[in-house]
Amino acid sequence: MAEKFASERNIKFLLYEVFDVASLLQYPYYSEHSVEMFDIITDTSMKIGRDLLKPCLMEMDKEPPEFANGTVKVHPVVRTFMQECGEGGWISSIAPFESGGQQLPHMIDFIPRFIFAAANYSASVYPMLTTEAALLIESFGSEELKNTYVPNMFAGKWQGTMALTEPQAGSSLADIATTAEATDKGYYKMRGQKIFISGSEHNGVDNVVQLLLARIKGAPAGVRGISLFVVPNKRFDEQGTLVPNDVNVTGIYHKLGYKGCPICQLSLGEEDDCRGYLVGEPNKGLGYMFQMMNAARIGIGLGAAAIGSAAYYASLEYSRERPQGRRSTEKDPTIPQVPIIEHADVKRMLLFERAVVEGALSFLMQCSKYSDLKMVLTGEEKEKNALLLDLLTPVAKSYPSEMCVWSVSQGLQCLGGYGYCDEFPLEQYYRDVRIHPIHEGTTGIHGITLLGRNVSIQNGKAFQLYLEEINRAIREAEGFAELKDYASELKDATAKLEKTTSCLLSIAKEKGQDVFLADATLYLELFGIVSIAWQWLLQAIAATRALRNQLTEEDVLFYEGKIYTFRYFFGYELVKIEGLVKRLSRTDGLTVDMKQEHFFDGM
Amino acid sequence: MAEKFASERNIKFLLYEVFDVASLLQYPYYSEHSVEMFDIITDTSMKIGRDLLKPCLMEMDKEPPEFANGTVKVHPVVRTFMQECGEGGWISSIAPFESGGQQLPHMIDFIPRFIFAAANYSASVYPMLTTEAALLIESFGSEELKNTYVPNMFAGKWQGTMALTEPQAGSSLADIATTAEATDKGYYKMRGQKIFISGSEHNGVDNVVQLLLARIKGAPAGVRGISLFVVPNKRFDEQGTLVPNDVNVTGIYHKLGYKGCPICQLSLGEEDDCRGYLVGEPNKGLGYMFQMMNAARIGIGLGAAAIGSAAYYASLEYSRERPQGRRSTEKDPTIPQVPIIEHADVKRMLLFERAVVEGALSFLMQCSKYSDLKMVLTGEEKEKNALLLDLLTPVAKSYPSEMCVWSVSQGLQCLGGYGYCDEFPLEQYYRDVRIHPIHEGTTGIHGITLLGRNVSIQNGKAFQLYLEEINRAIREAEGFAELKDYASELKDATAKLEKTTSCLLSIAKEKGQDVFLADATLYLELFGIVSIAWQWLLQAIAATRALRNQLTEEDVLFYEGKIYTFRYFFGYELVKIEGLVKRLSRTDGLTVDMKQEHFFDGM
Repeated sequence: MAEKFASERNIKFLLYEVFDVASLLQYPYYSEHSVEMFDIITDTSMKIGRDLLKPCLMEMDKEPPEFANGTVKVHPVVRTFMQECGEGGWISSIAPFESGGQQLPHMIDFIPRFIFAAANYSASVYPMLTTEAALLIESFGSEELKNTYVPNMFAGKWQGTMALTEPQAGSSLADIATTAEATDKGYYKMRGQKIFISGSEHNGVDNVVQLLLARIKGAPAGVRGISLFVVPNKRFDEQGTLVPNDVNVTGIYHKLGYKGCPICQLSLGEEDDCRGYLVGEPNKGLGYMFQMMNAARIGIGLGAAAIGSAAYYASLEYSRERPQGRRSTEKDPTIPQVPIIEHADVKRMLLFERAVVEGALSFLMQCSKYSDLKMVLTGEEKEKNALLLDLLTPVAKSYPSEMCVWSVSQGLQCLGGYGYCDEFPLEQYYRDVRIHPIHEGTTGIHGITLLGRNVSIQNGKAFQLYLEEINRAIREAEGFAELKDYASELKDATAKLEKTTSCLLSIAKEKGQDVFLADATLYLELFGIVSIAWQWLLQAIAATRALRNQLTEEDVLFYEGKIYTFRYFFGYELVKIEGLVKRLSRTDGLTVDMKQEHFFDGM
Repeated sequence: MAEKFASERNIKFLLYEVFDVASLLQYPYYSEHSVEMFDIITDTSMKIGRDLLKPCLMEMDKEPPEFANGTVKVHPVVRTFMQECGEGGWISSIAPFESGGQQLPHMIDFIPRFIFAAANYSASVYPMLTTEAALLIESFGSEELKNTYVPNMFAGKWQGTMALTEPQAGSSLADIATTAEATDKGYYKMRGQKIFISGSEHNGVDNVVQLLLARIKGAPAGVRGISLFVVPNKRFDEQGTLVPNDVNVTGIYHKLGYKGCPICQLSLGEEDDCRGYLVGEPNKGLGYMFQMMNAARIGIGLGAAAIGSAAYYASLEYSRERPQGRRSTEKDPTIPQVPIIEHADVKRMLLFERAVVEGALSFLMQCSKYSDLKMVLTGEEKEKNALLLDLLTPVAKSYPSEMCVWSVSQGLQCLGGYGYCDEFPLEQYYRDVRIHPIHEGTTGIHGITLLGRNVSIQNGKAFQLYLEEINRAIREAEGFAELKDYASELKDATAKLEKTTSCLLSIAKEKGQDVFLADATLYLELFGIVSIAWQWLLQAIAATRALRNQLTEEDVLFYEGKIYTFRYFFGYELVKIEGLVKRLSRTDGLTVDMKQEHFFDGM
């Protein structure tokens, strides 16, 4: 079984050399922390990942949660891990001190999340969801809600969830039909069905708190009539004892992967006794929920990159150890075979994995930095970081999700027949990672968000800020002779993205929304490739700078390896924009004009 | 559960309208057949697929073969199906009458294979392997071998296999180490290990016949010392009773998918009593085996396209029935939702699936036609068809295998969360189809075969013949005003392929084999896209011609649907060559120069 699942060396390279997390310490909000503490967090996370989570990876897959007697039995590690996350402050890490949190930068909070997900994605979801749900109550809930729920969630005793999807309302949240009927006792009576809700009931915690979207009776149709509620599976009675709240699991899903975390169907109010507590104001629920959804979307990107990382190291280890074949110039069949990593095609596959995973990770850390700067800066600078984060969230969710499906597949391919068998973890990673283009909004939805909304935010201001960010990296790279050609390639690619964007925006006016948005998914793909190229240029700048110093042999190999991977991305991945730009320039409306009857070809 | 898995209408369109299978009836070898009989074969295959195979699809996945007491227990349908295949003549269909076969064209034999694989891929492998193994004995075995084995195999009573892989010899067949020691009794004593052998022992037949590569003691090292043997799991004793032949199953693999067919590890000669029977001459085994390998490679492409077809229809059915969301121009949330097929992005995904599946199918049928013409023509014409088949076999194996992994993934995506759950068959198709880029030579191996060997066959003659084939289609398309622009696009793409090929061949001289072959996998991808574009142009010609006739409304929709899918392929897929051509023009040797130590990034 492959051991390594993430690289501390790479994490520290990104944190300190590319994104200079130490620069955040100058701001009062983060000033109580130190680089030493950041290192301890990384080291401790690796230890938990290695000793607690990774050993259960396959077991949680082979023995998935069981639904019986109204509850869901999960692997015992869930309770241990949730306790550890509570006691270690991992769940509350980005919450402010005054709310009982650790007030850590997002860039640092990012590290345990990534490491836990790389060690065992299913396990990592439990605390991650709890954090996001608790922060949502913190942001918009009443003092009573905060006091009742948040401390138990931060302590890892109670699970948090996000309960949006219903049988008729998946991508289309406007169609949410779960109802909330006001009472004169301060709560609402809830009634409805929720489906596909991760972690919504299990025996690894003492209670589950659903952050749930529903419609108050009489509310307007569509998204303007959706409110946010806290609906616990158990509520306190007058004696302060936890009693059932009429939230009933009606089934759990049998899934391709991501099996260690139960996804349930819930029925609310079967006995007319399900109480929900309104968060914030009525009919503003979707807006509130976007705080959790946006954080969760970056979390999904991170989860995908994490599985990609684990798969990369598993295939790297195999490729170093498996002897097979000889160099193409070697004709003597009696000399020993070489490890397959010596074959250019295997190196190409490993480089693809590494370029995708480390590029995605860099991009996600970039987004975390925007979150941090948005927190500590003010005025125009604050707004700038908020706009960039908003613009890039669909990319942060979708690029890792889509591309790590392919990078894990290449990892599996490195192992040949063994990759297809369950003695090695690749086949599980391949199944686990496939959830990411689906949950928290499918890739198609994010394409429409990016092209249909985000690039036009404030008349294109966010997009302009993004182009400036890239241009700053290009100008810096131009200062290094070794990087000049690459800087110019990225300049060219960015110009193509800009031109494609304005062409498409003019199409919106000429041919209408349907044609404009028809290939939004491909636009998202184009945007993603350019973004990751930008991140690789930033990494190349840091590596080139480092290589000018006196270094150990190990460090030389590390930075040279970064440069090779950077060159791989530009040479093999960035070129893919050529086909995308060509396609996007032809807005022929093919998929709009074609009728569904044209798929008819007999019974 | 989705019902449709393949389209008879499309099969007949390809057979009769694109490839004119009836034209084969003019040759004496095929003259006893008729179009009516071809139709009956298609109809009967659909019936077997629908009534016998499809109903067991999920069951065979959920209850995979079990290894116990030295044998492997498979689903009872295997025995029924093998019997039916024997009685119906499906196993022997392309064998000549004189060998007990049906003497059917490959293009027709192709149909039941495709249909069975679309209905239930695992089940389809049993007769497919048996056919190929029996034909190998027919081609190179002694009369005694033929008489002993072939009739039982054609009757579906005995299973055939191909036994190549060993622990140290997967992609590298030169390293095969199983030994054969001559005796004076007409047989060899076999000793060694084989791994990853599909169907190599099971209770669905009375005996298994391994077509096995081994090394006669004292044979030269490498591929020139490999011989081909028949090694049955049971042999006849002197009384004519079947007795064990010391072929021992030591384990079966637990796989990601393709679970209905057991893949075993075998140990030969543990008790020094395993008899093998030499096929043909000593040390020529690999050459003989290539007959079976090449047929099996086209079979793998077919299997991938078949799973792709089943996934396409399952996602099409879902997309037609699932209401979700409204058109992007519709702002009223109270009007009913539309079926998701009305969304351009869903149509795009379905078109991707259809374009890949029907394009691959067309290309595979093209290859079958070359097989048929090679059989019935003589002299230069025979050689021409043989060369084309040889050139294109790696593409026929790899394009469907690689692209149907993607197309099934898009099918799964159409279903959103349901695609990830086992109530729908997509997640199984996604697991099943992933074997194809691995078995019968990985995609990397086929890239090296295409670029390193095939395009240079007879000084590039095969490649020139291929270009002529495409040019003939282009000239024909130029006769239709509607197709002129597309013909010119394909001309441009073909010119790029030709130029890339000669650039790469000159690199071989300048920079050596390693750099030349470093991106052979990407060359294969480029070659595949151009080939499928050619096939779509052929289909567009047939559809355009048909649309000039008086047609039923159904037929109009069918042919228009073909034209939309053709336009999709040119608009969305053919453009991908731009990035590939750009990459392949930069032979910077990145993956050759980079050392494995550059992947080092800490423990």
